[in-house]
Amino acid sequence: MSLFTLPAFRHPDFSSAPLRDAPTAQFMPCPADGMAPPDFHATSIFPEYVHMTPGNWVLLRNSRMDCVIRRAGEAAEVVEFRRLKAGDVVAVGRGENGEDGILVHATGFAEAASACGGETFAFRTSTSRETSFSIDYDTLYDILRHDREKGYIVWVGGPAVIFDSDARRAFSSLVRKGYVHGLLAGNALATHDLEGALYETALGQGIYSKKQAAMGHYHHLDAINTIRGYGSVEEAVRQGAVRDGVMRAVVEQGVEYVLAGSIRDDGPLPGVTADVYAAQDAMRALASRATTVVAMATQLHTIATGNMTPSYQVLADGAVRPVYFFIVDMSEFAAGKLADRGSLTAHAILTNVQDFIVNLDRALD
Amino acid sequence: MSLFTLPAFRHPDFSSAPLRDAPTAQFMPCPADGMAPPDFHATSIFPEYVHMTPGNWVLLRNSRMDCVIRRAGEAAEVVEFRRLKAGDVVAVGRGENGEDGILVHATGFAEAASACGGETFAFRTSTSRETSFSIDYDTLYDILRHDREKGYIVWVGGPAVIFDSDARRAFSSLVRKGYVHGLLAGNALATHDLEGALYETALGQGIYSKKQAAMGHYHHLDAINTIRGYGSVEEAVRQGAVRDGVMRAVVEQGVEYVLAGSIRDDGPLPGVTADVYAAQDAMRALASRATTVVAMATQLHTIATGNMTPSYQVLADGAVRPVYFFIVDMSEFAAGKLADRGSLTAHAILTNVQDFIVNLDRALD
Amino acid sequence: MSLFTLPAFRHPDFSSAPLRDAPTAQFMPCPADGMAPPDFHATSIFPEYVHMTPGNWVLLRNSRMDCVIRRAGEAAEVVEFRRLKAGDVVAVGRGENGEDGILVHATGFAEAASACGGETFAFRTSTSRETSFSIDYDTLYDILRHDREKGYIVWVGGPAVIFDSDARRAFSSLVRKGYVHGLLAGNALATHDLEGALYETALGQGIYSKKQAAMGHYHHLDAINTIRGYGSVEEAVRQGAVRDGVMRAVVEQGVEYVLAGSIRDDGPLPGVTADVYAAQDAMRALASRATTVVAMATQLHTIATGNMTPSYQVLADGAVRPVYFFIVDMSEFAAGKLADRGSLTAHAILTNVQDFIVNLDRALD
Amino acid sequence: MSLFTLPAFRHPDFSSAPLRDAPTAQFMPCPADGMAPPDFHATSIFPEYVHMTPGNWVLLRNSRMDCVIRRAGEAAEVVEFRRLKAGDVVAVGRGENGEDGILVHATGFAEAASACGGETFAFRTSTSRETSFSIDYDTLYDILRHDREKGYIVWVGGPAVIFDSDARRAFSSLVRKGYVHGLLAGNALATHDLEGALYETALGQGIYSKKQAAMGHYHHLDAINTIRGYGSVEEAVRQGAVRDGVMRAVVEQGVEYVLAGSIRDDGPLPGVTADVYAAQDAMRALASRATTVVAMATQLHTIATGNMTPSYQVLADGAVRPVYFFIVDMSEFAAGKLADRGSLTAHAILTNVQDFIVNLDRALD
Repeated sequence: MSLFTLPAFRHPDFSSAPLRDAPTAQFMPCPADGMAPPDFHATSIFPEYVHMTPGNWVLLRNSRMDCVIRRAGEAAEVVEFRRLKAGDVVAVGRGENGEDGILVHATGFAEAASACGGETFAFRTSTSRETSFSIDYDTLYDILRHDREKGYIVWVGGPAVIFDSDARRAFSSLVRKGYVHGLLAGNALATHDLEGALYETALGQGIYSKKQAAMGHYHHLDAINTIRGYGSVEEAVRQGAVRDGVMRAVVEQGVEYVLAGSIRDDGPLPGVTADVYAAQDAMRALASRATTVVAMATQLHTIATGNMTPSYQVLADGAVRPVYFFIVDMSEFAAGKLADRGSLTAHAILTNVQDFIVNLDRALD
Repeated sequence: MSLFTLPAFRHPDFSSAPLRDAPTAQFMPCPADGMAPPDFHATSIFPEYVHMTPGNWVLLRNSRMDCVIRRAGEAAEVVEFRRLKAGDVVAVGRGENGEDGILVHATGFAEAASACGGETFAFRTSTSRETSFSIDYDTLYDILRHDREKGYIVWVGGPAVIFDSDARRAFSSLVRKGYVHGLLAGNALATHDLEGALYETALGQGIYSKKQAAMGHYHHLDAINTIRGYGSVEEAVRQGAVRDGVMRAVVEQGVEYVLAGSIRDDGPLPGVTADVYAAQDAMRALASRATTVVAMATQLHTIATGNMTPSYQVLADGAVRPVYFFIVDMSEFAAGKLADRGSLTAHAILTNVQDFIVNLDRALD
Repeated sequence: MSLFTLPAFRHPDFSSAPLRDAPTAQFMPCPADGMAPPDFHATSIFPEYVHMTPGNWVLLRNSRMDCVIRRAGEAAEVVEFRRLKAGDVVAVGRGENGEDGILVHATGFAEAASACGGETFAFRTSTSRETSFSIDYDTLYDILRHDREKGYIVWVGGPAVIFDSDARRAFSSLVRKGYVHGLLAGNALATHDLEGALYETALGQGIYSKKQAAMGHYHHLDAINTIRGYGSVEEAVRQGAVRDGVMRAVVEQGVEYVLAGSIRDDGPLPGVTADVYAAQDAMRALASRATTVVAMATQLHTIATGNMTPSYQVLADGAVRPVYFFIVDMSEFAAGKLADRGSLTAHAILTNVQDFIVNLDRALD
Repeated sequence: MSLFTLPAFRHPDFSSAPLRDAPTAQFMPCPADGMAPPDFHATSIFPEYVHMTPGNWVLLRNSRMDCVIRRAGEAAEVVEFRRLKAGDVVAVGRGENGEDGILVHATGFAEAASACGGETFAFRTSTSRETSFSIDYDTLYDILRHDREKGYIVWVGGPAVIFDSDARRAFSSLVRKGYVHGLLAGNALATHDLEGALYETALGQGIYSKKQAAMGHYHHLDAINTIRGYGSVEEAVRQGAVRDGVMRAVVEQGVEYVLAGSIRDDGPLPGVTADVYAAQDAMRALASRATTVVAMATQLHTIATGNMTPSYQVLADGAVRPVYFFIVDMSEFAAGKLADRGSLTAHAILTNVQDFIVNLDRALD
């Protein structure tokens, strides 16, 4: 029986000094398409308020790292540089404490830390493979149970998630049980998952038997070619060509997903987004709704997602809750990268994603 | 004084059995755009001959992993699936020993191995951080001296190459000394190199002093915004805005380069290719001319390049030479990945790219 | 229901050429204590036969890497160099195919490979974190079920095995269920396990809560000092001072164990062997009886054990069976080291030992 | 021209409150051999003062992690638990701020941090392979130049230091140039260095050529056996049997060294200490004189040395200076371990030790 509750959020007190006396934010026009005015203000993953008109502090929605704040009437949007048009009006000033009419409020969830290890959590030294992870697993189980109904859980995965038969089955099961609302991945995860469905191999090697299949190095190409013949993954599933696996579950459960293209891709599969900035936009559409993110065994997609996921979510009723971000990786270097880039207060679990996902499926009904 | 000579290449003997009696290759039309016929033949990085007409075996040029062979009159082109058009005629048959009119000839450079450690090289167990690398450095020095004049040297780099002041200076120096003919990288390498030129930081931290600059987390955004103001990296260099660094050297030396976009990008800088398959095409245009590739501190770009680089190069005079491929990385896992995927007989040097590049610049005039 | 059966072993055919005509082994006296004669023969982990008298080939028992063969009447003992006495008579000749009266028989278990992935197992490329491990887990479960009754299972562990509460509980449970016959570890595993029993911390951090205990950095010293007060771990257990954990289970189940001292040790605990060669002897006494070894999260103890564990075991009835050796580690480098040193055909599982041991306890009754 | 100067040290102000009013330290007798009294005080690597008699605060010399303070007349010694005798009188009380008559003074070198990156050094996030290391190299060069004459430089090394021909030559050169006053290593470094001298291999593989020598797996055993014939490494050097390498240089330069035994050892070589606690004592005899420690490519010896090396050194004239501690390793996990254990404010350089040591030899005359 979970006792999990979301931590409360406290808005800043705008009625007292010094915020009471802060100026309104200044906006300047963009000098050219894709170019911000000098001294532009860049956003972070933290709750950020813009003093739009005297006394009216607007909390940004769908914020993300390293974007700018564009005025849209009374509202303030968080926009990538590449989407700016000449003449767009963008907030300037780099102060974070209200002196420029902008307040970064990183401590609203003061109690939130207790979700993962108590008040002294902040004093722990760095996370390594020798860190105790039992409590992180238990916390994650609680959060996922909660957010299955009341949140939006985004998963990010590299192909290692589906190279092993037990892991592939476990992740498929979590999709079917409703724990996966969005999936962010690349061509490789989908391709090798479909290779598994068609041939029970990944890159030609048995996902259980480990045996190299005869001509197995053709399997992923044949899988892509086959799906291309159907026109889409959806159509292949519909026609019964996909025996099992993550992509079948995702399609059948109606999970939203983005397959972002990369320069490593063979194929690609139909449905893969070739333009990386279009892919960013599609990913952010999911990430900005996330209440929990679980990122597994991919640096590229994890860092991309981390940069575009705010640390908080404004719910329909206006309440503010934290966004939980779990990273699963084998190396301290990879796990530490997000934190180093200031992206998120990430919870890293250092283990093989195969065991991780099997654990989750076993613990969650 | 280098005694380096290229190993000789021996073509197969097509005049004796069994090749003498081999059938010609079969070609079948593609059923739809982007789709190969069933039983298509997939290419590798090895020299591959197609029996086009009786007695006429054509050695593929600019081959790469996992593409198909399209007939173009008398010629045979190596083409990505995504570029196929309905009705294109593509080789079928998966035999590699001539039985389907196609011969994969992996042993043409039987003596080549001696370039890196002698005839027993093949018996070494796996490469690790504890492998002795003196001979690999010496071999690489010899090859680079040779190929500066007589080859085409392609470098692949992640941003770690320019996070350190000495490393950044060394790589810039190698560009100026003529050892860099092509550069394959992403938005991050160029952005942080330009950040270094403008602010002497990378991600806000001093590239020599390590001090966090005040408001340093704005530096990479300011760098991008500044270059956007100039319209291109080239224009920024021309107007003297770029004090030093790799991108300035690349522009001034006329080095060909591709900056491939990724979902992690901020900005991006002008000149970054948003479409990953367009980026693949641009990368392959350089990779297919490579005689040596040096890939440093990036899994994404290294594997992409490895897949598109053949293991041999047909010179203007018809001679065939090997393509050398060196990978520099800190982890056995990353260094081993290419080999595991069958991409290349890669020479891995396990070390920090900072030391690696400084070593190269010191050894090469 | 396990279908696990031990693979059959085939002795060489000594009655046919060339072995029929092989000379008997030559023995030479040691010139000094601790010194072998020139041209001494060194042993391996493989089955090795010594031609003692014409027609009498003796299979070595309790062999190990890099020792010599000392004649003891009709018998042949495998002895460390340090234990040689001047005048001891030692086999010479380095031939491995009978030409010097010694035969290394590495292929007796030709079918054995099928226990872990089928006949093509040998053709797999290197093991990495992306290798599929489901079948390795299943194989290990089968072997452990079999050897609980019919073998001798030796576990080797670093302290990371007991830093996490779930992992510590799981390993204790495996001890109590009879899956642990011998334990090879160091002062750290025992010390922090006892710290866990006394304070629920490891190095002062909660093994579940992760909270830093007040004055927690004293806990391991207090644990050692407390156990020293009891005189031994056994006495502390007997008097009820050890609430739970691996060492309590080991003592109560009568598991044989060796705690080898190291230069990193605090304390040490009573029962730790200070002399590393005495510790080697004690470890080898267990390792030479092993039918299965599971080595977790320690390079030092794993390599030491690997070197002293033969790849085969001669049972009471003269039958020969393989010794299974599983290594659990987070890094390809560590996991690959044993194999590189020729120690064993090791089965590596790359994951966090916390998940590994919890998986085992869950699967095994 | 180096501008390197040692940072000044400030003693605490014992004449003002609250230290002026602090009680003297309490001492209690040990209840048994090897056992401290309850509430014993444990030492750290930081400067620590004991209030022996009213107004007389004694700065501990040769302190180390996790030992106790034994009264010896007016003096206070830092002693391992295992060396305590019943009745020895040991300081009790765990306060660190004088309340128990003991003061831990961790901030005496407030300016010291500037030696490696300036005042903001403390605010850097964790060190990784992507950290810029140019300034660390330059700092280390300066310190080594200084301490060659005015300090005591202790090197700690794993065998990887001598597996490569250039690295082995570089380290030998540093010994001959006077930069090595003490060497802490194990049997493996010495054995494979001597194997290199006798056979130009390490574990049978050419240290330059990488070729597997015929019967090369005997080389390290033959090397040990040969040296055993001479009776000692020193005698083998004296008689000209050791062509080159680190051990020859160490012997000829009269460098103090400790070879600590381990359970992994073959042989061992003459001169290896079998008892790990005797080895600890011998290591500490050097470590307690160290002004700089450079620890390369060994977790075991690095952590052992880190625990026994104080962060400060009291010079002959009573001046107090910092002890610099550099760690070279390939993995963030290993490099981070010391810091996590509170052992030292370690400076980690993440790279291959081969490049590291070649860099040092090149930079230092």
